[in-house]
This record gives sequence, structure tokens and C-alpha cells, in this order.
Amino acid sequence: MKKRNSGRWTKQRKHIQRLPPGSSPGMIHVPPEALKPQIRLFSFSEDQFQERVLNNTDELTQMVSDKSSSVFWIDIMGLGDKQMLEKIAGIFGLHKLQMEDVVNVYQRPKLEDCGDYMFFITRLIREAEEQVVNEQMSLFIGRNYLISLQESHDPSLDPVRNRLREGKGIIRKSGSSYLAYALMDTALDHYFPVLEKLSDQLDNLQDELIANPTREALNQVLQIKRELIVFRRTIWSERDKLNDILRNNYNLISAQSMIYFRDTYDHCIQILELTESYKEVTASLMDVYHSSVSNKLNQVMKVLTIISTIFIPLTFIVGVYGMNFARVNPETGEVLKYNMPELYSPYGYLLVGVFMTIVVVLQVIFFIKKGWLGRS
Amino acid sequence: MKKRNSGRWTKQRKHIQRLPPGSSPGMIHVPPEALKPQIRLFSFSEDQFQERVLNNTDELTQMVSDKSSSVFWIDIMGLGDKQMLEKIAGIFGLHKLQMEDVVNVYQRPKLEDCGDYMFFITRLIREAEEQVVNEQMSLFIGRNYLISLQESHDPSLDPVRNRLREGKGIIRKSGSSYLAYALMDTALDHYFPVLEKLSDQLDNLQDELIANPTREALNQVLQIKRELIVFRRTIWSERDKLNDILRNNYNLISAQSMIYFRDTYDHCIQILELTESYKEVTASLMDVYHSSVSNKLNQVMKVLTIISTIFIPLTFIVGVYGMNFARVNPETGEVLKYNMPELYSPYGYLLVGVFMTIVVVLQVIFFIKKGWLGRS
Amino acid sequence: MKKRNSGRWTKQRKHIQRLPPGSSPGMIHVPPEALKPQIRLFSFSEDQFQERVLNNTDELTQMVSDKSSSVFWIDIMGLGDKQMLEKIAGIFGLHKLQMEDVVNVYQRPKLEDCGDYMFFITRLIREAEEQVVNEQMSLFIGRNYLISLQESHDPSLDPVRNRLREGKGIIRKSGSSYLAYALMDTALDHYFPVLEKLSDQLDNLQDELIANPTREALNQVLQIKRELIVFRRTIWSERDKLNDILRNNYNLISAQSMIYFRDTYDHCIQILELTESYKEVTASLMDVYHSSVSNKLNQVMKVLTIISTIFIPLTFIVGVYGMNFARVNPETGEVLKYNMPELYSPYGYLLVGVFMTIVVVLQVIFFIKKGWLGRS
Amino acid sequence: MKKRNSGRWTKQRKHIQRLPPGSSPGMIHVPPEALKPQIRLFSFSEDQFQERVLNNTDELTQMVSDKSSSVFWIDIMGLGDKQMLEKIAGIFGLHKLQMEDVVNVYQRPKLEDCGDYMFFITRLIREAEEQVVNEQMSLFIGRNYLISLQESHDPSLDPVRNRLREGKGIIRKSGSSYLAYALMDTALDHYFPVLEKLSDQLDNLQDELIANPTREALNQVLQIKRELIVFRRTIWSERDKLNDILRNNYNLISAQSMIYFRDTYDHCIQILELTESYKEVTASLMDVYHSSVSNKLNQVMKVLTIISTIFIPLTFIVGVYGMNFARVNPETGEVLKYNMPELYSPYGYLLVGVFMTIVVVLQVIFFIKKGWLGRS
Amino acid sequence: MKKRNSGRWTKQRKHIQRLPPGSSPGMIHVPPEALKPQIRLFSFSEDQFQERVLNNTDELTQMVSDKSSSVFWIDIMGLGDKQMLEKIAGIFGLHKLQMEDVVNVYQRPKLEDCGDYMFFITRLIREAEEQVVNEQMSLFIGRNYLISLQESHDPSLDPVRNRLREGKGIIRKSGSSYLAYALMDTALDHYFPVLEKLSDQLDNLQDELIANPTREALNQVLQIKRELIVFRRTIWSERDKLNDILRNNYNLISAQSMIYFRDTYDHCIQILELTESYKEVTASLMDVYHSSVSNKLNQVMKVLTIISTIFIPLTFIVGVYGMNFARVNPETGEVLKYNMPELYSPYGYLLVGVFMTIVVVLQVIFFIKKGWLGRS
Repeated sequence: MKKRNSGRWTKQRKHIQRLPPGSSPGMIHVPPEALKPQIRLFSFSEDQFQERVLNNTDELTQMVSDKSSSVFWIDIMGLGDKQMLEKIAGIFGLHKLQMEDVVNVYQRPKLEDCGDYMFFITRLIREAEEQVVNEQMSLFIGRNYLISLQESHDPSLDPVRNRLREGKGIIRKSGSSYLAYALMDTALDHYFPVLEKLSDQLDNLQDELIANPTREALNQVLQIKRELIVFRRTIWSERDKLNDILRNNYNLISAQSMIYFRDTYDHCIQILELTESYKEVTASLMDVYHSSVSNKLNQVMKVLTIISTIFIPLTFIVGVYGMNFARVNPETGEVLKYNMPELYSPYGYLLVGVFMTIVVVLQVIFFIKKGWLGRS
Repeated sequence: MKKRNSGRWTKQRKHIQRLPPGSSPGMIHVPPEALKPQIRLFSFSEDQFQERVLNNTDELTQMVSDKSSSVFWIDIMGLGDKQMLEKIAGIFGLHKLQMEDVVNVYQRPKLEDCGDYMFFITRLIREAEEQVVNEQMSLFIGRNYLISLQESHDPSLDPVRNRLREGKGIIRKSGSSYLAYALMDTALDHYFPVLEKLSDQLDNLQDELIANPTREALNQVLQIKRELIVFRRTIWSERDKLNDILRNNYNLISAQSMIYFRDTYDHCIQILELTESYKEVTASLMDVYHSSVSNKLNQVMKVLTIISTIFIPLTFIVGVYGMNFARVNPETGEVLKYNMPELYSPYGYLLVGVFMTIVVVLQVIFFIKKGWLGRS
Repeated sequence: MKKRNSGRWTKQRKHIQRLPPGSSPGMIHVPPEALKPQIRLFSFSEDQFQERVLNNTDELTQMVSDKSSSVFWIDIMGLGDKQMLEKIAGIFGLHKLQMEDVVNVYQRPKLEDCGDYMFFITRLIREAEEQVVNEQMSLFIGRNYLISLQESHDPSLDPVRNRLREGKGIIRKSGSSYLAYALMDTALDHYFPVLEKLSDQLDNLQDELIANPTREALNQVLQIKRELIVFRRTIWSERDKLNDILRNNYNLISAQSMIYFRDTYDHCIQILELTESYKEVTASLMDVYHSSVSNKLNQVMKVLTIISTIFIPLTFIVGVYGMNFARVNPETGEVLKYNMPELYSPYGYLLVGVFMTIVVVLQVIFFIKKGWLGRS
Repeated sequence: MKKRNSGRWTKQRKHIQRLPPGSSPGMIHVPPEALKPQIRLFSFSEDQFQERVLNNTDELTQMVSDKSSSVFWIDIMGLGDKQMLEKIAGIFGLHKLQMEDVVNVYQRPKLEDCGDYMFFITRLIREAEEQVVNEQMSLFIGRNYLISLQESHDPSLDPVRNRLREGKGIIRKSGSSYLAYALMDTALDHYFPVLEKLSDQLDNLQDELIANPTREALNQVLQIKRELIVFRRTIWSERDKLNDILRNNYNLISAQSMIYFRDTYDHCIQILELTESYKEVTASLMDVYHSSVSNKLNQVMKVLTIISTIFIPLTFIVGVYGMNFARVNPETGEVLKYNMPELYSPYGYLLVGVFMTIVVVLQVIFFIKKGWLGRS
Repeated sequence: MKKRNSGRWTKQRKHIQRLPPGSSPGMIHVPPEALKPQIRLFSFSEDQFQERVLNNTDELTQMVSDKSSSVFWIDIMGLGDKQMLEKIAGIFGLHKLQMEDVVNVYQRPKLEDCGDYMFFITRLIREAEEQVVNEQMSLFIGRNYLISLQESHDPSLDPVRNRLREGKGIIRKSGSSYLAYALMDTALDHYFPVLEKLSDQLDNLQDELIANPTREALNQVLQIKRELIVFRRTIWSERDKLNDILRNNYNLISAQSMIYFRDTYDHCIQILELTESYKEVTASLMDVYHSSVSNKLNQVMKVLTIISTIFIPLTFIVGVYGMNFARVNPETGEVLKYNMPELYSPYGYLLVGVFMTIVVVLQVIFFIKKGWLGRS
């Protein structure tokens, strides 16, 4: 079995570099390892589509007041440029606390309605090179724009970009909230393969635990359990977020998008149910482990008991005939005829052998009756 | 005990062929193994009844605007015809996302109200040829029509068809919502025999675990537990769906049908309670297993202890008289009279035998007092 | 301990004869073992009281429209007459589905408000001839009538009949809802002795498990636990029903009766709390069992260890002096003076005895220090 | 450790003398062991204070219609006088069912609003003479009167009487609801010392269980757990009662008293949290017990293993040299030189001793490496 | 591993010196160990800032009616001056019960709205000198003032004082509710390092438990679990408090502050989730401990079984050849040729040695096949 590397997001939490307690709120603290941002600007409506790389955020200013029916998607990958982020916050009037959350990439999924725009956080959990990657995607949705900010140059949202480029489906006709839906739904779609991989690992572990209940396998079960707990927590917040969208009539979410969000909500519930199932499986695997261990102990004890029970009485018998009771009193020469007469019988040795064989046969019958000689 | 095959629906989940993440929503992806559809059209009112096989969906168009009091039931079995499904969606104005759910047959029970029509998903769980089959039935209910779509040519809803044919009860007089009730209630009725079979299996396993706590029996308990978890989840969603009907006054559900849905709701609660009971039984069986295993270990240990405790002291005694302390100093010929005088007593051997018998008798009395010689 | 027979209601569930799936709803299916009904008619008001046995349901018709202040109680014991039940349903306008529930005697406690009348189901759980009997009482409450339907000729509601006959308390002055209260309250009063009996059984089992943790006692604990689970479920539904009465102002429940229903609700909560307590006791008993078993194992192991630890070294010592190292080389006659000189010492035997005694004493001291020789 | 007597209230429940099922509601059934009542009448307002013993309930009549600003506190200790109770119920118009609850002293804490007056039940749980006493205090609060009824002559509410006598704080100025608050708050204050004593017992038990995991200590843990369950249930009802006061604007509770009830509510939550903490501690103690037991078993097994592992091989070795292979064929006189030449070597005995010493030393090294010789 | 001292707050609870039951409410009982207060007065608005030490509370009177836009922060550290506290309560019209809570420093986090002012309690939990300190901070927020009262001269809120002094961010412009936010948020920020330290301890314990499952390590796990329970309870109340702020539009909380409180609420949820995760880790560690212990037992049993199983049969064999069956009848001189002829074979000894070697080899093969000789 290969070494599992899927613990990245639980590991990473350990090294969160928090600001010191009592720091001023709303400080954009870009961590040194943050990637240089790549900004792409998509502008589209039912009739037209443009895409280009943006090097300068100045021209974004005009979009805020753009009166055409175009929708602008500012697609940012990499968060390593504080000036750029502050500029965008200034242009679109985004709250500093939210910009802080964008950069501090360990937020729970959430939704904040700020009147002019809405702020979403979604977790991108996906398989990449045998690892589970857990990144953050932040979305600001306005009337005619969507700003998406990802931690890395992660390609998992490329299908949405391609659908937009190819004009497939209704994506170009349906405004910023449908685009936000498409991004969030795609993010959630990536959860399924991750869960399926965990499920495969659990299946392998079950076989392993039955065959050979090692500590290492147990530790792997415990770790998968922890990962599922983290996973469930994320999904639970995701579910709350989607529920919030469905319950409230946010005016930035078009009526048309609502039924799509309901679909995403259904997926979310499915993921939640799978997660719960796998958590129950890990609990069962703990049971399998413990029963496997006590099974092994039972087998060990049975072997010990069978060997001891057969040979200890035999050893006693041969011990009896190893006693040195004298046949003849060395001083008087008197024959002590009650002292171990068997030793002087011509067939004594053979009879003892026969007797011991009978004892062994009886014991074997007893063990077979008890079912101790079969496989457990 | 026969091999259990009831795990089909948990197994099947493994092989769900999902579309790749980020696919356009509302795509009707008909899996290659889907059956060719058989379409039956029932049209009935209080006065008349017609039934025929439909080969062409064209004539459905007129039903949408039919002003008579007739109700049309389009009864589709098999989902393997994408064109047909799209045509029907077009004719009745059904949403693409819902048609996607119809084809993607792993949905949870749910209800969606779309104004002109309502969309229901119900799970058909039933016994068939020693297997548990878990299929999906989708219903679209309109003012004067009901479209039912089943995965296979499953006969479990035939009683409803027959009641309609024979005009039994109020089924012909009561519109599309009563017909939907009849289908959903019949689907739920099939859950009882499945649960009863699981219950019988649990009873057998209890006897087996007490007699002989094998790993295999334990695994069966664990698997039944998992199936009950899946079952409960399905029923729970079913309950939510029915509760939703009872709480809200959907205008497509006739007032007359409401009391029948309440009856179905009661059945649903009963199934839920049975499921919970059986889940508690599986937990008890785990306890039975563990106590059975530790009972076995105790028995093994008792046998070992009894044999060892009886024979180890005896072996010591005979070992004592196997010592070679010299009675006569070989060099000086001096009689060493304190060296093992017992060996030279005429009744030494007999007395040792008597002494050992007494030791054994005392030990047996001790074991009887401790209750180690009884059963269990 | 006598064999417990209290499992009747869990047992009975096994043999529920359900109608086949898909049967027409509202079918009154009288099971063949149902008893022939005895109908008693009580008619009373503040001033008058009449009671008689009713052989014919025809005369009930006039009661529906009776304008006097009299209240009629139609007291039916035994459900084995389909015609009679249908007739009554017809006279009072009762819904077929509810009449189906009356006959299908495995319903959960519930309340249905149908405008003209209310429908109640209550479970009669009581001790009878060392058995727990779990029957169903159905009530239809109208403005001036109460119809009660019991499965059997069970006398547990006789105190209410007697109070009515004797005109004790306010029972004759308080209409149909107070009479319904009196019946339901009396039904619940019978739960206490059942619970107290279970509690006594648990106390006995606790003593038994501590003294001798047998499997049989464990099975009894597990069965009582299951019964408590069923019991709790019933009470929980009962509580919901009473809560429903208290929360809603049903116009068929007189204001005067409400405070009495609140009293019944309090009793219900007390029963629920007792049930929960006893469930916790069963969990503790499982703990007691497991600790009792592992205690036994420890004692067995201690005996084995003490005996082995004492005698194995002694056996080694006597084995040493059973070795046959030659004192004299048989070929050369040379005295091998380093070979086991102890054997030729005049006090060798005694000294070995003393040495072994010292070893035993030291070991006993060790065991006492470890606390292994005391009672566990 | 002294014998714990704190189980009184759980014990007492066993002997509740209920009326037979179906008894008329509202019957005041005074148990024979009830104490003769002592009635004290306090009458006070901001300006005046009177206290006297009341022998006759007749003069209470005028209080009901007293128009002055005086508040009357009828302070009854002992419930053994049915006539008196009925008279009071008559004078103040109290409901029979509530008077039944006053006498039937096993009620849960509750609140009932009856328009003219409110009815409260509070549990008085306190330490008295090494026992936990759990009594009932019933309160009827009217516009200008408070009737308190206690089971016994329990002094735990004396601080309130004294504050009233001394005119401390605002107690004389604040009407009947403040006085009710003072009584209930004082009752709850007595819970803290009871909990602290349980906590001390748990601490002692933890030390005891680590040192010596006896069954008796385990039973004490289980009993404290049960008491905590009862305690929690009581507090939970108390909390509901107080919450009810805070949520609803009962017109008999003065606005001024509300903030004081909120303070009591806070105490109640604190007691609840302490109770929950101690329940978690009992769960941990179960773990400590089980780990302590398995620790003991491990130690026993280690001793057995070490002794057996050292001496069994040695016993084999000395057994080898106890074999009687002949050096000289007795019949032919031939020297059998391959038969056990060691026995005839001059240093054979010493070499065997050295060899066995080496074996022992190697084993001891093995045990030390395994960590079996240290303290576990 | 260093001794952990983090248990201060669980310990301290033990020594709460409560007033005797029934004491008058609203008594300010200053404990003797309370520190002498240091009072600092900050007065600030957008334009100005003043800070000074206050020795006399008289001048506070004028602040209550100050009509300028200045905000006053009365920053009190140390609660050991009853007169001063009563004076402040008098000046600002604070309720006596709340002042009692300020001094009785074991309150749960809470919020009370009193119209003119709001009262908050927050727990300051932080690391200080290898200890976890759990102190109480009380806040009274008025229109233009904030009174903060801390138990000790704890520096953990200094960052807020410095931000105020330096005029960083919006703190001087945002009134009393923003200042209150800043204090509470800083208090919560200190929870993270405490949790991270607990997490590190858990990691160390996991390694320790796997290597060597000592009781001491188990006790540390149990204690960390208890601390996490206390922690969680505190956070839960904190969460309720913040939720209360967000749900209700308290007029003393400015709209501008609300979004900041939402941010604090998010932090609170993160702390709660971390706490839950660590609680799950402690549960896993219990599993690790138990599996580690049973692993050790298994190893011990395996060694015992291997040694016993190898040597017990061998000892039997050598015992056989230690029997003294006579080759020659001492009385008749007859050769008893069936008595142990092996002893007189020239290669008997060697053959027995070969036979025993074969037995050992077969057993070792058996053990290897069972996997008992590998590392478990």
C-alpha cells in the first residue's frame, strides 16, 4: 500500500500564520509564499464574448458604472499583490474585513450580503498528484460583475471558463449569479472523486484489518476519520450557505439561478450523506480492528492451551515413573514390593505409552467438540 | 445459511458513472445500460377508462390543453431513449435539471413545486429474486396528467394499474394527486417485507453469534447495519417529502388526497421506527458478539488454568522424588539417612499417590466453589 | 428467576398480517382471531344515567342529531364484526382510513381532527397474568358522543365505567372530552406498574450479574432494553398527542378538560423520565456485566499465575537434582568431584527443602504486596 | 471511605405509593407518614411586619379581599392535615389537581398560570446529616399573598425568613413575586454544596480507582452517575420553569423581580453545567477503571510470562540431563560412548550451570529491552 | 515532557468561595485576595485623545451627562475596592446584581441589555508563564462611555490601548460599541495560542501512547479532554452572546460595528470547530491507548506461548527418557526387553536430539506461518 498523502489540509492548519492577538481588523496581510496574481477579464453578454489578460487594474473603474447588459468576470489566480487587492477593494467598494478573509485563506464557507454586492467563500477540495488540495475561492458578486479570487493557479475551474468560451448552455445569457453558481457547483463536483478515493482506501483497509490487524492500518483509519470530520465540517458550512441562498430572496441572485442553486444544494446533501456513511464505515473498521485483535489473541491462547493441556499431564505421567522409590532397601536388602511395581513389569513401558496415547486422544476429542481445532 | 445478496444498492453506488466535474447542468446523459422505454397511456375519469401502449409521443401534445375532466397517466418504464425524454420535457414544459435527475437514477426522495407541475422522486425498494432492488420512480404531476418514470420494467406498481383497470375504490374519481398518492403509498408498502427479511436475518445471526461468534457472522451484522443506515436515510427523506406535502397547501394536491397522504406519512413513521429498532438490534448483536468472544476466551483460559493448576503441583511432587540425593556416600559408604528417607519406606510410593489424590480433590473442590467447572 | 414473558408486544409485531402491498386504502380487514364485539351504551348528563347492552346498532342513528344535553358513550370491546364497524362509520360519518386503523391494531398513538369529530389512538399497556399486554384503544369524540373501541374484553378501563355508574367526581357533568380524558388518563396510569415491574427485574439482574455474569442474564438485560425502547417510542407519541391537545384549541375539547389533560401530560413526562432512567440503568448493567466478566477472567489468570509462579521454579530446582551427572566415571572409576556434590552431602535433601520453602515464602510475600491474594 | 448515603431520592422513588390506576383526579391523598403542619403567617409591607403562628385557617378568608398594600405569606411546613389543605384550597380558589400535586410530593419542577394565581413546584435538594434530602416546595402566588408548602420542617429556607424579619434588602418592599424569587433562589443555592460533595467523592474515587480498581468503587461511580442523571433532570425542569418566567410577561411577576429571576436563571445554568461536567467525569472514571483493570491483568500476565519464560527452558535443560540413556549396555557391557558423554565429563555439572546462567541473563536482557521489568 | 500546568481554571473552580445559601442578592462581596484597582481614564473622539490615571471617582459624575462627542473609557484593573465599585454603580446607575457578577469572577460569558447601558461578560483565557489563565472581563457600555473591569493587571488587552493611543485604524472615530468590539475580539484572539498549545500536547501524547501506553499519559489525555470541555462551554456561551448581538438591533451597538462583530463571530466559530476537533482527537487517543495496551498484552502472550509451546513438548520427551523402567528385573535378573530399549541403543541420545530439533523446526515454521514472529 502506498503512503497516503491526503492529509494536507489537516496538516496545513497547524502552520497558519495568524496575526498577533489584538491586531487592527481589516489588515490585508499577504503571506510571503503567496503566488503572484494572474488576472483574466471575461466580458460577455448574450451576444458577445471577450477574454483577455489584465495587467493593470485601472480600467476596472469603468465597469462599476457600465450600463450595458454585459457581465464582467474578473478572474484572479494568486493573491500575492497587496496593492492590487486594495485597489480592487477601492474600485468596487468592498469591505476591508472581507478582503482580509480573501487573503487569510483558512476561512469556512460563508455568505455575506452587503447590499451592493455579495461575498462568498467556497472551499476547493480536489485530488491533485496523489494529494488532497484544499484551497479557498472567494467570490464577490455585483449586479454586472463577478470577482473570483483563488489561492493558486489551480485548473479545477477551467471547465467553467471553457463553457463560457464556447458559449455552451445558458451561461452567457444568465448574468453574474448564474456564473457564480457554475463556479460553486464545479467546486463541489470535485468533492466526489476525493470521497471516492477515501472510500477505496477504506475498502483496502477493511481487507487489511481482517487479514492482519496492524497498528499502522489502525492509524490510517483514525486519520481518514479525522479527514472526514474536517470534510464534513466544510460541507456542513457549504450546505448552510446554499440553504441561506435558497431561503432568502437575495436580489443579486436571479430567480432563474435559484433552481440551479437548489440542484447544487442536492449535490451538497449527497456529499454530506456519503461523508456520514464513510464516517460510519470508519467506526465499523474500528470494530473490525478490535475484533481482529481479540481474535488473534484468542488464537494465541488456544494454541497455548492446547499444547499445555496435552503435554502437562503427559509430563506428569512420565515424571511419576522418573521417581526413584527404591525397590530394594539398600541397607536391609528387603524388597519393597509396593514401591512402583510397574517399573518392573515387562510391558510397563508399553502400557504407559498406550495410556498416554489414550489421554491424548481423549483430549483431542474434547478440543474438537469445543470447536478449538477448526479455523476460528 | 445462504449467502446474502441484499447489498445491491450499497454496492451499486460504487459504480455511479458521474459526469466529469464542471459539466453543463441539465444534460440528459442516458447510461448505455438503460432499458428501452415502454410507454403506456391511461386516460380515465369517473365515467370512462382507456389504456393503450404508446409508440409515439406526438399525440401527448393535445393532453396539455385538454379541457375535459379526464386524467392522463403516462406510465414510462425504462429510460433508454434520450429523444423521447427531451420531447416529453418539451411538451409538458418540464425543467431540464429535473429531467437530468430522472435519468441519473441515484437521487434522494424529494419534492419540487414548479407552479404548473410538481416533481417527485420516490425510491422503489423491494425484494426480487432474493435480492433487494433499489430503483427510482420519478413523478411529474400536472393538473390533469401524471407522468411516472421507472428505471426498469419492475412489476411492483402493478396493483395500482390493476385497481385503475378494475375501477376499484375511488381511484378513477380522484384526479392526478390521488393517483400519485396511490403510487407512492404502494412503493412504501414494499418496504415492509424488505425490513421483515432483514429482521429475520438478524434473528438468525443472533442465534449464530451466541452459539459460535465467527467473524463472518460479525461481518454480516456490520453489513446489515450499513444497509439499515442507507435505508433510514432514504426513509428520512421520504418522510420529509410527505411532511412537506402535509404542511403546505400545494394547489395540485387535492384536499381529498391530503388525508390519504397523512396515512402514508403514518406508514413512513412506522417504517422509520422499525428501521431504528433494527439498528438498535444490530448494536445489541455487536454486544452479543463481543461477550460471546470474551466468553470463549474465558472458557479457554479456564481449561488452561484448571489443567495447569492441577498438574503443575503434581509434577513438582513427582519431580521431588526423582531427585538423585544419594542414600549412601559412594566414596565412604556412609549412609546419609536424612537424604530422602521416603524413597526407602515400604509404602512411600503409595503414600505419595494418596497425597497427590488429596491435592487433586482439594483443587477440584476449589474449582467447584469458584464455579469454574459449570457451564458458561 | 422465573421466565419472563413480558415481550409480548415486541413478539407480536413479528406476526402482523399486513395487507399485500398496493391494496386499496380504507379497507376494513378484520383479522380472523378478532373477538366478537360487546357493545355497551352509556347515556348520561348531570341529571340522569343509563347503561345497557346494545345488540343492534340501528338505534344509534338518532343520537347523532340528539339535541338534549345528554352524552352518549358507545363502548365497544372486540372488533370482530366488519358489518357493525361499517355501519357505525356510516352513521357517524367516520373516515374509512380511520376505521381501517381501528381494526389494524398496531397503530402508534395519534390524534386526528376531522372537524365534526376527533380521532384518537391510545395504547393500553398493562400487566395481566404475568404478561405485558399491549392493546389498542381507539376513540372517536363528537359533540355529544364518544365511541371507544378496544381490541379485547380488557378490564383495565373499568374504573372509569364505575366512576360513571357511581356518579363520582365531575365525570357526569363534563361532556365527552372529559370522558375521553378519563379513559386516556386511566390507560396511562397502567403504565406505572409495568415500569415498576421492569425496574424490579433490573434490580434482580444487577444482583445476579455481580454475583455471576451469565449470558442468560445479559440476554435478559438486552431484551428489557429493547422493550424499553418500544415503550419509550409509544410514550413519546403519546406525549406528542397530548402536547398537540394542549397547544391547539380544538373546539371539541372543553376548556374545563384542558387542565386535566395538562395533568395527564405531566404523568406522561414522568413515565418518559422513568423510561429514560431505566434505559440508562440497562446501559450501566452492560458495564456491570463486562466488568464482572473481566473480573472473573482476572481471577482465573491470578490463580494460574500464582500456581505457575510458585511451582515452576520449584520444579526446576528438583529437576536440577534429578540430573544424572556421574560422580564416578564408570570407565576409569575416577571420582568427578565437581559433579553435583550436593547430592552426597548428608543434609543436601533437607537444605534443598529449606531453600524451596524460602523461595515460596518470598513469592507469597510478593503476591501479598501485589494484592493478588486478597479478594478482588 | 465512609459509606455514602446520598441516594435517598433515587431510593425513595421506589416506594411511591400511587393511587390505583383510574382513581378520580384531584383527590387529596395524604400519606400516613406526612408531618402535622405548622403554619406561620407573615404579613408585611414597606412599613410594617408581623409574624405569628396560625392555628386556625379561618381568619385567612379576609386576606383574599384585603385592599391594603400588605403582603401575606402563609408558610406551611408539613402536609399531614387534609382538612386544612382543602380549606385553604377553598378560601383561595386553588385547583384540586394542584392541591393533589402539593401532597403527592414527587412532582417535577413546574409552573402553572391560573389567572388569579400562579402555581410553582420547586425541588429542595440539600445536604442534611450526611444525607441528600430531596423535598418538594409548592408555591401559590397571588396578588397579595404567597402560600408556601413544604414537606417537612426543613430549615433550609430560614435565611429568607430571617431577611424578612430583619427587613434586610428590598424584600419587604417588593411584593409576593420577589418573595417567591427569594425562596426559589435560596432553594437553588443549596444545590451547590450538594454538587461540591459529589465532586469530592468523585475525586476520592479517582484516586481509589487508580490505586486499586475494586468493584465497589465502580458501583459507587455508577451510583453517582445515576444521581447526577436525576439531578440533571430536576435542574433541567427548573431551567424550563425559569425560562418560562423570563419569556412570558406574567402579570403576577413584577417587572422589578424579573431581573432577579434572570440572576437565578444564570445560577441554574451554572448548576446544569457543573452537573454535565461531573457526568463527563464519571464517564472518564469508567475509562480509568477499565484501564486500571486491564493494567492489573497485564501485570499479572507479565509476571506469569517472565517466570514461565525463564524457568521452562531451564527445566527442559535439567530434564535433558535427567534422562537415563545408558553409558554401558547392561547386557553386553559395551560402552555406548555417544550416550550423554556430558554426564561423565568432570566439569559437566558446572558447565551446565554456566550455560543456564547465560540463558537467564539473555532473557533478562530481552525483558529489559521490552520494558517488562519496569513499572508499567 | 514537562509537567503541564494548564489546568488552572478547572482547578480554581474548586475553591470558589460562594456566599452562604440564602444571602441577600446584589451584595458586592470583594474576596480578600482581590487586587487593588488601577483606574485609567481614556477620553477620545475623532479629534482628540487624553489618557490619565484616575485616583478619585468623583469626577466621573460629569461624564454621564457630557454632551460632546467624546467617548470615555474607564479602564479598571483589579477589583479590590468595594467603595469604588459601589460609587461607580451609583454614578452610572448600574444594577447591583451586575456589580455582584463583576466581583464574583466565575460568570459565564453573557450579555444583558438594560436600556441605558449594556452589560457584557467575556472570559480572558490566555497563556502566561506556562499556565493557562482564565480571568473575567466585565464591560458596561453606555452611549458615550465604556467601563471595563478586569480581575488582574493582565496585559493581554494592551494592543487595544496602544491602537487607541496611536490612533490606528478607525478606533477613535467609532464610539463605545466599536471599542467594546475591539476588546472582545482581542480577548478571543488569545484563545488561538492556548488551543495550539493543547494541540501540540496532544501530538506529543499520541507519539508517547504509541511507544509506551503509560497510565500517566492516559491521565494527561483525560485531563486535556476535561479542559477542552470547559473551553468549549465558554466558547459556546461566547458564541451565543455574539449571536445575540447580531440578531438583535441593540441601539447601543452602532450599525458600523455590526460587521466587525460578525467577523468576531466567525473567529468564535473557528475556535469552536478547533475545540471540537481536538475533542475528537482525545477520543482517538483513548482508542490508541487501548489498542496500544492490548497490543502489549498480545506481545506478552505471544512470547509466553512461543516459549511454552516449544519447550513443554521437549520437556515431555526428555521426561520420557528420565523414566526408571527397569531393564533387568532386580529380583529375577530377567531382562525386560520391552522396557525403554531406546536407552540402550548406541545412538539413542543423538537420535532423541535430532527428533527434538525437528520438533522445534516444525514449530518455528508454524509460528512464522501464523505471523507470530514478526513485529506486530
